Parts: sequence; structure tokens; C-alpha cells
Amino acid sequence: MLKDLVRDIPDFPKEGIVFKDITPLLQNPSSLKEIVDKFTERYANQKVDVIVGAEARGFLFGPAVAVNLNAGFVPVRKPGKLPYETASMTYELEYGTDTLEIHKDAIKAGDNVLMLDDLLATGGTMAASCKLVESLGGNITGCAFLIELNFLNGKDKLSKYDIFSLIQY
Amino acid sequence: MLKDLVRDIPDFPKEGIVFKDITPLLQNPSSLKEIVDKFTERYANQKVDVIVGAEARGFLFGPAVAVNLNAGFVPVRKPGKLPYETASMTYELEYGTDTLEIHKDAIKAGDNVLMLDDLLATGGTMAASCKLVESLGGNITGCAFLIELNFLNGKDKLSKYDIFSLIQY
Repeated sequence: MLKDLVRDIPDFPKEGIVFKDITPLLQNPSSLKEIVDKFTERYANQKVDVIVGAEARGFLFGPAVAVNLNAGFVPVRKPGKLPYETASMTYELEYGTDTLEIHKDAIKAGDNVLMLDDLLATGGTMAASCKLVESLGGNITGCAFLIELNFLNGKDKLSKYDIFSLIQY
Repeated sequence: MLKDLVRDIPDFPKEGIVFKDITPLLQNPSSLKEIVDKFTERYANQKVDVIVGAEARGFLFGPAVAVNLNAGFVPVRKPGKLPYETASMTYELEYGTDTLEIHKDAIKAGDNVLMLDDLLATGGTMAASCKLVESLGGNITGCAFLIELNFLNGKDKLSKYDIFSLIQY
């Protein structure tokens, strides 16, 4: 099972947090393939024009699944990383704020967009990414995650979207 | 041609540098597939146990090619991002230094390792990544890039490795 290869790291990045380390899943050829295959199967019968993933771990599975679905891949990045004209979105963190950017020409109005990330925790990053895509006219057909931490209720911030996750806690 | 979709951004990230923007290649389904297919074909007849890619753009193609080659994927990251025991390497930049980390258990002695990144510029990041892999006993079978900037002579820092690039300037 995929879950058996997730490694718990206590007190990372700070005390009291148990970090879900996905690197054992990535470095195992069969679990890496299983992840990409399962995302592909889930969306194989839907029209997906673009997969969007946020820096940095959102880059890990998006392009592989995009190739399988005959879609493109669009990165959402931290400020100052994307070189062309960008749209940006600032969102609240537990302490302070964070900002994400997307290229303005990355999504065309009416594009069917699948959002893909490694982890659904509080949902803040994904909610901000979705708003960016919608600000460009994209139609979000789903939000997919490798891991979902149910106890953090991230789905509440994403209640208007179809959520799919491969591993749940 | 892939090269036709690379977008030149003058004076990014600073004056006098022409940045090679690969996002148009990523968002086009056929060029994204072509990139992954060409990397796969190049190494299909070699034994590759692990593909290593550096944060963040090195994450874009590594996992997709790894699935095709029945290999695993191992991330090299900036300090403080990898949660388990790490090996680290500090290297010189034009001004100052930078540090990269890898999980110590990510490479086994004797693993055949393909290094994959989006861009070969001066070669500093790739040379440091290679040293990290070799410090863990990995056998580097090649360094592959989407884009190589020949005029920066990055190959000089990687002269003991087999270099392959899809697009050259």
C-alpha cells in the first residue's frame, strides 16, 4: 500500500507537527508509477486541458499525469520566479501571509483545469491557486492530492470543488 | 520544434540576462509529451535505478521520465526542506554561495543515477548535485538537460559525465 511508504517525521518543520515525508514513495519505482497511474485513471474519462501544480512539490506529479491525459502543465510559483506577465494572489497563513503567482497567458478562458498537489492540509495554498486559475477564466474540474490530512478540514476551504486524494489520514 | 516554444525574456532575473522561459513548452500538451518521450528514448537501453532532480524546475520532468524507465525519483532540495537525515553540499556562485541537500538514504551504493534538470548554464548546481550523489556511493550514468547554454561552458564543470541536451544555444 502507498500509505506504508509515507514516513512520519515528528517535530518537522517545527515542534508538535508530524511531517508526512513522501520521498520514500518517490524513490520506489513501483509506488511512483502507482501514484501517476491512479491519478491518470481517476481523470481519464474527463476533459482536462491543463494541470496546475504549485511550487515545489506540486511539480512532482503534474507533468507526468498531464502527459498521460494529453494535457499541458502550468506552474504556480512563489513571487519573482515566473518571468513573464503574472497574476498574483496573497493569502493568510497561521502567522502572516504568502503570495503565489501564475503567468497570465497560462490559462485560456474556458480551459478545463485539474489542480494537483502532494498534500491537502489546511487548504490555503490550494484555495489561492484555484482563485488564480479562476481569475484567468479557467474552469476547475477537480483538486487532486497524494495525501489528505482530514483532521485539518482543508476541504472546507475547497467546498465548491471535487476533491480526490490517494492517501488519507 | 521544441526550440520554437522557448520564450526569451530580456533582463530577467536581472539586467543583461536573457532568461529562457520554458513555460510555453510545459503548457503545450504535445511539446510536454515530446520532451518526456525524448528523454525516455535516450536512456531506454541503459540501466537507470534512480533519477535525481534539483528543486524546483528539476522536479518537472524527472518523475515522468522515471516512470517510463522503471526508476525512482530523488529530489535535491534547498536547505531545511528535506525532513530526514541529509547530506549537504555548498558551492560557489558568482556572488556568494548556495547549498543543496539530499536524503542520506535516497541513494544506495552502486545505484545507477541519471541526473536531470531543465537548464545547463554555468553548471554549478549540477556539479554540486553530482557530488552529493557520489558522496552516497551513486554511479552517475549521465546528466540530461532540456536546454543547454553552450556559451556559458557549463560542460567544463561536468567533464567526467556524459551530457545530453534537447535544445542548445
